[in-house]
Amino acid sequence: MCADVTVLGLGPMGAALAAAFLAAGHRTTVWNRTPGKADALAAQGAAEAVTATAAVTASPLTVVCLATYDAVHEVLAPMAGELAGRTVVNFTSGSPEHARETTAWAERHGVRYLDGVIMTTPSGIGTPDALLLHGGPQSVFEDCRGTLAALGDPVHVGTDTARPSVYDTALLALMWGTLTGWLHGAALVGADGPGGNATATDYTEVADRWTRTVRTFMNAHAPDIDSGHCPGADFPLRLHLMTMDILAHASELRGVSSGLPELFQELTGRAVDAGHGDDSFARLIEFMRKGGPA
Amino acid sequence: MCADVTVLGLGPMGAALAAAFLAAGHRTTVWNRTPGKADALAAQGAAEAVTATAAVTASPLTVVCLATYDAVHEVLAPMAGELAGRTVVNFTSGSPEHARETTAWAERHGVRYLDGVIMTTPSGIGTPDALLLHGGPQSVFEDCRGTLAALGDPVHVGTDTARPSVYDTALLALMWGTLTGWLHGAALVGADGPGGNATATDYTEVADRWTRTVRTFMNAHAPDIDSGHCPGADFPLRLHLMTMDILAHASELRGVSSGLPELFQELTGRAVDAGHGDDSFARLIEFMRKGGPA
Ligand SMILES: NC(=O)c1ccc[n+]([C@@H]2O[C@H](COP(=O)([O-])OP(=O)(O)OC[C@H]3O[C@@H](n4cnc5c(N)ncnc54)[C@H](OP(=O)(O)O)[C@@H]3O)[C@@H](O)[C@H]2O)c1
Ligand SMILES: NC(=O)c1ccc[n+]([C@@H]2O[C@H](COP(=O)([O-])OP(=O)(O)OC[C@H]3O[C@@H](n4cnc5c(N)ncnc54)[C@H](OP(=O)(O)O)[C@@H]3O)[C@@H](O)[C@H]2O)c1
Repeated sequence: MCADVTVLGLGPMGAALAAAFLAAGHRTTVWNRTPGKADALAAQGAAEAVTATAAVTASPLTVVCLATYDAVHEVLAPMAGELAGRTVVNFTSGSPEHARETTAWAERHGVRYLDGVIMTTPSGIGTPDALLLHGGPQSVFEDCRGTLAALGDPVHVGTDTARPSVYDTALLALMWGTLTGWLHGAALVGADGPGGNATATDYTEVADRWTRTVRTFMNAHAPDIDSGHCPGADFPLRLHLMTMDILAHASELRGVSSGLPELFQELTGRAVDAGHGDDSFARLIEFMRKGGPA
Repeated sequence: MCADVTVLGLGPMGAALAAAFLAAGHRTTVWNRTPGKADALAAQGAAEAVTATAAVTASPLTVVCLATYDAVHEVLAPMAGELAGRTVVNFTSGSPEHARETTAWAERHGVRYLDGVIMTTPSGIGTPDALLLHGGPQSVFEDCRGTLAALGDPVHVGTDTARPSVYDTALLALMWGTLTGWLHGAALVGADGPGGNATATDYTEVADRWTRTVRTFMNAHAPDIDSGHCPGADFPLRLHLMTMDILAHASELRGVSSGLPELFQELTGRAVDAGHGDDSFARLIEFMRKGGPA
């Protein structure tokens, strides 16, 4: 069952979304403020609407992908009446506050609203790996999940429409942490010296295998954070800190910058000094919060 | 085909190794300098040898797991004659130089030698997730791979016996990078404010899904490092830096420490300033090397 869908905004991302809907067989209507952006999509079967109002009345579901929330309000406000009872999924990037404001507007006008974030670039759209996060009523998500699946892997992160934006930032921190740690490792194994001169490709094959194990640590630590009970078991913070010292030393020897090891040592050192040497890594979250344990 | 194996050293890790060999059905001989550590293993079927020499002559393969390389030399040196033609896999933690020295000793005495590292704690031994890295002749690895599989997932990282030690340190950098990024994200989503107050457990479910995507980025960037050709495509460093600024701002607002965002901004900022704004994340490795681009 392929539902009709409208896409507002045909920048690089909006155009990729429309192309993925078309590829999945949805009757797709598109609109862009500046004309002339729909030609390639029209050739793939998209219907180009001349006005935004004509676009949103063509489908029960409208996906919005504009440069800013100001643009979103400029485009949506004049057609609040037409949008009443219809569904809007807004993938425009913005702050949690932006999501809240738009949700309040949607509620005032009876618009069924999800705020979303797209965790990939236009070239990733339409692949099963593309993660899309949505916040808003579960029932609205369930109603359009099947259509959204044309774009990638749609996930509902809760009823709070501000949550996808916060998750977006949090997941990017995880991404950069992983990639920076991986690069630091690649610099170590690629340096001259005993055991060195490994190619990044060889190293990454093992690193990729290793991330599977790291995920099990991450998943095991999550409930510790929620309960505040962080038993260190056979890998307590004291042992992490000792091994971090080895990383710092090896980095020094191999000419790799000390930024990352020092950050690990500083954070973990504070927790150990505060008496948490026997706790698990999860305890460190308290030392990342300003005004947390000194 | 279950080969006989000897384990020297029954600290927490050595005892876990011996227990895993026994559980997999290997005839296992154990020895520890201080007597009395083998009782639990003997109850599971291990043969306790009274001397190290008796232990190594009982099996074609000896696994060594002692506190230090000094201890390894103290124990192995007197029985070089007995070890000639046999295989030693040494899981004692040490530096790449330690591995090199022990390899030279083994070559002088005709001992088939692998240097290994164990990327888990004693409680992880015997699970398919436990990653074990080995360096040394491929043929020696192939001969004992089947036996080592009782401990987890044995991987050969090359003929250079110093490599596992370097990989150990590199993979820990990746682990801490991932876990620190994940914790930073958990602190953001758990903070008060719009979209906040998510539990770490809810967040980690999505984070775990996201790591799958991050791995594809990592794997895609690896050949860029080796070739030095780092096209930024639709996620160039310039865009990373803009989004890192959003992370820094969100962290400030939610009371999460600025250490990690500042490290990302500093590293990426230097690369963009040096004219690499259109390159991919892989380019950053040059800015992690001391004496690399300023
Ligand atoms: N590209 C990515 O990798 C990526 C990834 C994740 C999320 N996103 C987000 O997706 C959204 C769209 O990004 P994009 O890459 O497609 O390009 P963009 O340059 O951010 O947005 C371009 C679109 O916004 C429209 N627009 C701007 N101001 C407008 C206004 N006042 N009224 C009506 N339309 C207006 C443009 O219309 P005109 O053609 O008329 O100017 C065009 O359709 C952004 O919020 C972006 O942050 C992008
Ligand atoms: N535990 C972990 O999570 C873990 C993880 C990865 C790697 N490793 C590595 O595995 C190795 C063993 O660690 P472990 O946790 O089992 O405990 P450990 O305290 O590091 O080592 C204890 C073992 O070393 C022996 N030993 C020490 N000095 C000796 C000497 N001069 N002569 C003979 N034996 C000597 C001890 O014998 P006595 O009983 O006679 O003192 C005991 O069998 C270490 O290199 C460690 O870094 C451990």
